[in-house]
Amino acid sequence: MSAAFDDWMKTVQAASETDMAALLPAADVLPAKLHAAMRYALLGGGKRVRPLLVYAAGALFGAAGDTLRRAAAAVEMIHAYSLVHDDMPCMDDDALRRGKPTVHIAYDEATALLVGDALQSQAFLVLAEADVDNGALPPARLAAMLRLLAHAAGSAGMCGGQAIDLDSVGLSLTLPQLEQMHQLKTGALLRAAVLLGATAGKQLDAAETAALHAYARAIGLAFQVVDDVLDATADSATLGKTAGKDAADNKPTYVSILGLEASRALAEQLRLEAHAALASFGEKALRLRELADLIVQRKA
Amino acid sequence: MSAAFDDWMKTVQAASETDMAALLPAADVLPAKLHAAMRYALLGGGKRVRPLLVYAAGALFGAAGDTLRRAAAAVEMIHAYSLVHDDMPCMDDDALRRGKPTVHIAYDEATALLVGDALQSQAFLVLAEADVDNGALPPARLAAMLRLLAHAAGSAGMCGGQAIDLDSVGLSLTLPQLEQMHQLKTGALLRAAVLLGATAGKQLDAAETAALHAYARAIGLAFQVVDDVLDATADSATLGKTAGKDAADNKPTYVSILGLEASRALAEQLRLEAHAALASFGEKALRLRELADLIVQRKA
Repeated sequence: MSAAFDDWMKTVQAASETDMAALLPAADVLPAKLHAAMRYALLGGGKRVRPLLVYAAGALFGAAGDTLRRAAAAVEMIHAYSLVHDDMPCMDDDALRRGKPTVHIAYDEATALLVGDALQSQAFLVLAEADVDNGALPPARLAAMLRLLAHAAGSAGMCGGQAIDLDSVGLSLTLPQLEQMHQLKTGALLRAAVLLGATAGKQLDAAETAALHAYARAIGLAFQVVDDVLDATADSATLGKTAGKDAADNKPTYVSILGLEASRALAEQLRLEAHAALASFGEKALRLRELADLIVQRKA
Repeated sequence: MSAAFDDWMKTVQAASETDMAALLPAADVLPAKLHAAMRYALLGGGKRVRPLLVYAAGALFGAAGDTLRRAAAAVEMIHAYSLVHDDMPCMDDDALRRGKPTVHIAYDEATALLVGDALQSQAFLVLAEADVDNGALPPARLAAMLRLLAHAAGSAGMCGGQAIDLDSVGLSLTLPQLEQMHQLKTGALLRAAVLLGATAGKQLDAAETAALHAYARAIGLAFQVVDDVLDATADSATLGKTAGKDAADNKPTYVSILGLEASRALAEQLRLEAHAALASFGEKALRLRELADLIVQRKA
């Protein structure tokens, strides 16, 4: 990673934090406990991979900053809500997230359920208000962005992937089945982040869409392969969540199917595929290339 | 109720059922279990009060049918998701809904969680696709409708009302506190249904907005007052859900604060307020007036 990339990343992460804090109701607005818990779930942690992807893709076509900040916040709110629900006792039953007690532990289960529900609504509200403070965004493009987000979040995307994941516990999945599950569970929202950032700048043509789909597919899979490698090799303190949990839960992973070395090789191959997909965008895709490197080379 | 109103209602209910069935993924589309459970939660039951309000309000300004059908389906999907989550063990822990086992009983808790999450996404997707099949709807109006729905669903609306409801168990609320809770918990989405139907026809001016707010406030409160009366007086078989549950759960209700007769009188007063709010719309508000009557005079 270059120092310039590192600076860019810190700038985007700090800006996203500030924006998201401003785009959530304050903790003293009624119902205060719900709003405090929503802020607890969303703010003060996380790598902000999805906002980074929104901004990096926004650079491709010069998207306006106020559209990008709403798109970045919206996609991160969807991600945060999914973590809150995923951690609940009826799902993964996890007590630790980003080094902090999960929402149902810090508050209670009913509040965690409502926090997730309300964060999802807030995501659509925040994005739908993009044309309020940005006369430059044509409403038809905003509608397209809302469709992108809703499609990625729902049963054909993230929720669908969660459902397949639930049903696959204890099964021995084939590699294509595992890939399909992750393309929905995490890949759909990462792809939405890329497409939202790019669409904030212009209505994409078929070639641009195809290239960004290929990039997003590669980083989406790489993200999961690396997650599985880290789950098998890193400790809980480094990860900020319970390590070794997939194996303990008897969940199929890339490491359990391919082994550790082949999983690492696959991640590297996907990194190169991500770079190749961006070839036609030239220098404007610098940050997207660097994010692919980061996703594969991260240690947590 | 007139026979013509009864016919209109049956026509809208049947059309909504057909539309919603078409606007959800089929039960054999992967992930099949999730999609089957989403259809179980949404289809085949319910009074469809919110779709009826969308269509009745749509008649005020001649909204296009394809916009109305998407708005009606979207608002009912939000309502259905909230019932699925509300019935879960960590919330109201209810086993019966519309005379059928609740989703977490018929399936399991994790599926119920995902069904609610995915139905919320689907609601925004279905509405955001309104301009795809309707060139007549300006995208800016669609964006306004999406904001209306997101605002009504989130922490300033339905989810916020749920949170206040949770925190009020065992407390003795004042009448204004009870009213505020219900204005969020059920009132916000009923109001959204009215405003979505009207906005599908035209961008509302301030006077129209104020009149529809007054109407929606009155029917929203009346709806809850009558719910409380029925909970205290009807049996489970008639209601299709567990009767007497509010008292058993020690939840504050209109009946527990005002008593039965004063609650019935309040409902009738709110019905008249709803009629009065519609005065400026003349004959085009016929169905909205009749729905106010229905909400107050229903037996289940």
